Amino acid sequence: MVYPGSSHTRFEHSLGVMEMGTRMFDSLYKKNPDLFLEALSIKPKDKNREEQIKKYRRNVRIAALLHDVGHSPFSHAGEELFESSIRHEQYSVEIIRKYFKDILEKGNVDVEQVVSLITETEQSNSVSIFLTSLISGQLDADRADYLLRDSYHLGVKYGVFDKDIFIESMNLGKKRYGEGELDFNFEIGIDKKAHFIGENIIYARYLMLTQVYFHKVRRIYDYHVLEATKEVFNQIGISHYPNLENLDDYIKYDDWLMLGYFAQGKGGKHGEKILNRKHDKCVYSTILFAEADKDEKDKLTREKKKYENKFTKIDEINSSTVSFYKITDDISLIDENKNQVSYLSKNPDSKIVNEMLQSPSLTRIYIERE
Amino acid sequence: MVYPGSSHTRFEHSLGVMEMGTRMFDSLYKKNPDLFLEALSIKPKDKNREEQIKKYRRNVRIAALLHDVGHSPFSHAGEELFESSIRHEQYSVEIIRKYFKDILEKGNVDVEQVVSLITETEQSNSVSIFLTSLISGQLDADRADYLLRDSYHLGVKYGVFDKDIFIESMNLGKKRYGEGELDFNFEIGIDKKAHFIGENIIYARYLMLTQVYFHKVRRIYDYHVLEATKEVFNQIGISHYPNLENLDDYIKYDDWLMLGYFAQGKGGKHGEKILNRKHDKCVYSTILFAEADKDEKDKLTREKKKYENKFTKIDEINSSTVSFYKITDDISLIDENKNQVSYLSKNPDSKIVNEMLQSPSLTRIYIERE
Amino acid sequence: MVYPGSSHTRFEHSLGVMEMGTRMFDSLYKKNPDLFLEALSIKPKDKNREEQIKKYRRNVRIAALLHDVGHSPFSHAGEELFESSIRHEQYSVEIIRKYFKDILEKGNVDVEQVVSLITETEQSNSVSIFLTSLISGQLDADRADYLLRDSYHLGVKYGVFDKDIFIESMNLGKKRYGEGELDFNFEIGIDKKAHFIGENIIYARYLMLTQVYFHKVRRIYDYHVLEATKEVFNQIGISHYPNLENLDDYIKYDDWLMLGYFAQGKGGKHGEKILNRKHDKCVYSTILFAEADKDEKDKLTREKKKYENKFTKIDEINSSTVSFYKITDDISLIDENKNQVSYLSKNPDSKIVNEMLQSPSLTRIYIERE
Amino acid sequence: MVYPGSSHTRFEHSLGVMEMGTRMFDSLYKKNPDLFLEALSIKPKDKNREEQIKKYRRNVRIAALLHDVGHSPFSHAGEELFESSIRHEQYSVEIIRKYFKDILEKGNVDVEQVVSLITETEQSNSVSIFLTSLISGQLDADRADYLLRDSYHLGVKYGVFDKDIFIESMNLGKKRYGEGELDFNFEIGIDKKAHFIGENIIYARYLMLTQVYFHKVRRIYDYHVLEATKEVFNQIGISHYPNLENLDDYIKYDDWLMLGYFAQGKGGKHGEKILNRKHDKCVYSTILFAEADKDEKDKLTREKKKYENKFTKIDEINSSTVSFYKITDDISLIDENKNQVSYLSKNPDSKIVNEMLQSPSLTRIYIERE
Repeated sequence: MVYPGSSHTRFEHSLGVMEMGTRMFDSLYKKNPDLFLEALSIKPKDKNREEQIKKYRRNVRIAALLHDVGHSPFSHAGEELFESSIRHEQYSVEIIRKYFKDILEKGNVDVEQVVSLITETEQSNSVSIFLTSLISGQLDADRADYLLRDSYHLGVKYGVFDKDIFIESMNLGKKRYGEGELDFNFEIGIDKKAHFIGENIIYARYLMLTQVYFHKVRRIYDYHVLEATKEVFNQIGISHYPNLENLDDYIKYDDWLMLGYFAQGKGGKHGEKILNRKHDKCVYSTILFAEADKDEKDKLTREKKKYENKFTKIDEINSSTVSFYKITDDISLIDENKNQVSYLSKNPDSKIVNEMLQSPSLTRIYIERE
Repeated sequence: MVYPGSSHTRFEHSLGVMEMGTRMFDSLYKKNPDLFLEALSIKPKDKNREEQIKKYRRNVRIAALLHDVGHSPFSHAGEELFESSIRHEQYSVEIIRKYFKDILEKGNVDVEQVVSLITETEQSNSVSIFLTSLISGQLDADRADYLLRDSYHLGVKYGVFDKDIFIESMNLGKKRYGEGELDFNFEIGIDKKAHFIGENIIYARYLMLTQVYFHKVRRIYDYHVLEATKEVFNQIGISHYPNLENLDDYIKYDDWLMLGYFAQGKGGKHGEKILNRKHDKCVYSTILFAEADKDEKDKLTREKKKYENKFTKIDEINSSTVSFYKITDDISLIDENKNQVSYLSKNPDSKIVNEMLQSPSLTRIYIERE
Repeated sequence: MVYPGSSHTRFEHSLGVMEMGTRMFDSLYKKNPDLFLEALSIKPKDKNREEQIKKYRRNVRIAALLHDVGHSPFSHAGEELFESSIRHEQYSVEIIRKYFKDILEKGNVDVEQVVSLITETEQSNSVSIFLTSLISGQLDADRADYLLRDSYHLGVKYGVFDKDIFIESMNLGKKRYGEGELDFNFEIGIDKKAHFIGENIIYARYLMLTQVYFHKVRRIYDYHVLEATKEVFNQIGISHYPNLENLDDYIKYDDWLMLGYFAQGKGGKHGEKILNRKHDKCVYSTILFAEADKDEKDKLTREKKKYENKFTKIDEINSSTVSFYKITDDISLIDENKNQVSYLSKNPDSKIVNEMLQSPSLTRIYIERE
Repeated sequence: MVYPGSSHTRFEHSLGVMEMGTRMFDSLYKKNPDLFLEALSIKPKDKNREEQIKKYRRNVRIAALLHDVGHSPFSHAGEELFESSIRHEQYSVEIIRKYFKDILEKGNVDVEQVVSLITETEQSNSVSIFLTSLISGQLDADRADYLLRDSYHLGVKYGVFDKDIFIESMNLGKKRYGEGELDFNFEIGIDKKAHFIGENIIYARYLMLTQVYFHKVRRIYDYHVLEATKEVFNQIGISHYPNLENLDDYIKYDDWLMLGYFAQGKGGKHGEKILNRKHDKCVYSTILFAEADKDEKDKLTREKKKYENKFTKIDEINSSTVSFYKITDDISLIDENKNQVSYLSKNPDSKIVNEMLQSPSLTRIYIERE
């Protein structure tokens, strides 16, 4: 694999996404074969029907396996050091095109069809957009896998939901944008009567975010890692990761290389903090939804003043910070009646999800330890 | 044991409550020994301190083990057939007084101290009220055990929370009712900083209720069992379970006996439905919180009309139905600062619990199968 | 269902066997489609190939679901009270023929094909014998389910093995009985390279037997239940369960009815012991394999003498007692080379299984409690 | 911590050993307080009894936490690059003496007492030898933790045994070496009647070894890592890890540093194989116990000849290779009668363990991939 450093974990996750995506694909087909064929623009009487299904299934599997292959060291924490506006999906696509092309074509896989499931390309069409949502959407295999996998390895019970019920409850919906017979897109959702599993997933996501991903120590290490990486870059004379034209260079940057630099003392002050586990200390934190709360904002202002000459980092978690966690994404419910799409947040029996769909606004103040 | 019929499950649950209550007792003592001694009215310098703690601990264990010993067959479903106003706790107390007295006294256990932990008695005082809340309160061992045990045996992931984190997060609070130094009661809660485990328990409770305990098929069997029991009573010439004066008779009524009567065909029409698994069928259900929703109420009225001559049961789930599930109970948060008590529902970071603390108002219409 | 009494557990188990059998069927087909077709005598080019596979699959599912429907109350403990030489499978077959015929034929299921998967019938042939082994054989769905299900509900870790690895490791072998090209039967086994999962299953089986099924208290309750049932039979004037000609009578005997009789005091002395949990007490037990050990046999003789006038039951566990647990069954290994069959017990890397395949010979002496 | 590179896993394991060791300590004390005091040479009437117990308990906890702190990168795979005859425990001891002394003494912990629980020192006596066996012995906390932790994170069910039953079954035995009243040592074992948990642990150990630790791919990576490390050493001009006099240097060698060197291409040919996941391929393997099998030895000779000019590594697993896994260690059984010690392998009901206690002799031939 390309990134040996964290490949154990990320590779394991990628296998999990492939498996989860496959099970979702199979379950949707089994549940409503006609609609599924329609979503894939396959004619029900097409003699090559099964072969086409197999081809799409394989493309989904490969795209699921490789969708994260472009990540820089330290995943999202490294993304800030890309040349402006590049996203990790673009690296994934270029890496597949350059390094996986041969092996994929040997197996008669169309590389461009695969990459169109990872990011929008010239080949993208309604079918690929639909299949993409299996890997990366509201209810995707990526998120389903990391919630379960993280909570398992962390040993917590936060992200737990019933995978089997989830997969069996998935369904296809027609989301209308007009009155015409064909004015709709296909959308993946869950059966209306199984709305509780949607609530369960949103709760799992909410709990993992507030208790794990936004944990005050985890957040400050993201910062130390970013700054230590900048210092390494400074010493080796670069300002950002090699860009898309320099893929051969880019893929050399893996977790092992960067951790090796830190261990060699090239990570500067922040590298030292990482090596010695002397991370900056959180001395103040607002509540989770501070934005709308005037008292909280006043208190924060006072605290910022108090630590004016001492704080090393003000960490703000807001809607833009959390965008990639997709915390505010609603989930589609599919009615058995004509497969109409509605939203979990509007479901009268699912009132509990609304608070969890709001974007947090949390600020923390950190200072150095003595 | 007294009720062999369902004793496997109920005995297993009782052992679980005993273990859970013991762990809660030990954890509270370890966390804040001084406060715990104060709550038990033991002087810190009392030479017999450890002995007194041990005595209370043993009483809690025994009361936890025996607190449900008075249940009639089919637990709560049978309670409607007690002579008016008797509650199952009173049977528990009398059964302990009559059948367990000898063995308890052999072990130097004061029977009256034990029963004062199950229901209010003449010996009840602030200490026993406090200890009672370990077994049956907002955050009790009974509920903690059944949520986890039921979800385990059902094979669902609804009632899951982290038992170890829960127990370690428990704390003692002082709930004030006046300004004086001593104007407070001791209350069991969880550390404010661990509020998420409180949210977790409320979510587990909410999910078990809506998905399991209020399940439309489970509810109708409660009804069939009640009616079949009435029919058996009719045939053997009694109108309710033997009352507290006739304990020897009462304890003969166990699940085995009643199921035997049903199998002998003495349960009438409802007994037949149970034997043949031909339970009445739910043809209409409102949403979970229908009370405040005018449309829902109108729809229900129309549906009732529609099934006017056909329905066999209108099942209303409302605040009184669910009282023993304590769905609307808030949870106390204990501040590290002077162990002050606040409420989870008022905690700014716990907004998600409010919807779950509301009492449901759900109505279902059932008809007979052909 | 026919036996409401214990239907919860047995019904749950039956669903489990159906699911396990289906997964095994699908896995074998997927692994080696040609061989699987051959085992089912389906021609590879047969146009109705998929339909025939579906029909067999459905028959397996139904047979798996219903194979235990003929059990008397208390499962195997009740089998001694059948009229001589009847086995519970025969009741299953007759119950299916009489009570399930209509519903099965409505779904175009051939009842005789189904029953030929449960016991040998006139329709039995090599295909049905092969499919039967999925439900009841060396490596059957029945045993795989009960080992896992029992250990789950008991909360022990004895019967645990990895279900998914087990199913994926299954394979089809050709067991030769002559030199001719067609001188072989099809046999279900596991891939030779996955022999460890076979060892794992044998260990799980061994541990469940010695720690759970042969537990000294469980064994004596089997005896008390048997004797209490005899006493009930005595009082209602029968000497054994209604035989195959009196099915309508037979199916009235379920756990509820018998437990009801016990609760009504009709189980005599042994019924009392069950009701009061005062089972006889084991005062002496030999080692697990006592037969070959002269010292053990002498000691047993002495102990029997010692308790001569006191013992109430000598419980002997030997090869005939344990026959239905199939503890001595070997497991087939399938070589990738021509799918040849060998045996786990002969596999040079699996020496650990030999001790576990021996039939135990254990004797215990019980006396009454005072 | 000292080794940030793999500290996540190793730190997690160390916390686990500390917890497991503490639970074992507490359980042994609770089970037989008098004998436990005797084993610690504390007089039953000693007024400072509880304080002394606490001190020993704390020493055990700290030693358990720190016992592996001296490991080089890649744990045991790195041990071959120590200056001759040094063992990792000696590094642990010196690291504790040098870097942890201050903090331990601040907490009134006697550093020499702690290190005497990790390796034999001048302060070692019968008490410290006894306590050491809790951390590293036949039935130690180290192994109990890694079997369970590895199988959990690997997602396999091989190393599973019931931790709670294990801990509750532990007991203290007196192992006699003479006839005199005091001619015995204290030994940790398990209750004779719970021998099955001992069998269970030996089976878990056997399965983890054969399926995980001796896995053909895992073994070859150990080799590649060793050779790549040698190449790095060659380039930076050292021949082995800094020895005990150069601790400040030694502790700089952590997994991060070494992986960084590999990522920088300094690991030579073997480093390349690791980076590109092109490990050598196993082309032949004997059975597990090949030593006693003449046929196997002849076959091996022929295969070695066949690959004479092609093989890159002959990997021999034998009693010396596996010594640190302690696969051949028996387990003590403690009789309730005078706490006499016997051995699991001699227990008449535990015949199944004997095959698992033999030392494997397995040889594999590897060649390079093209």
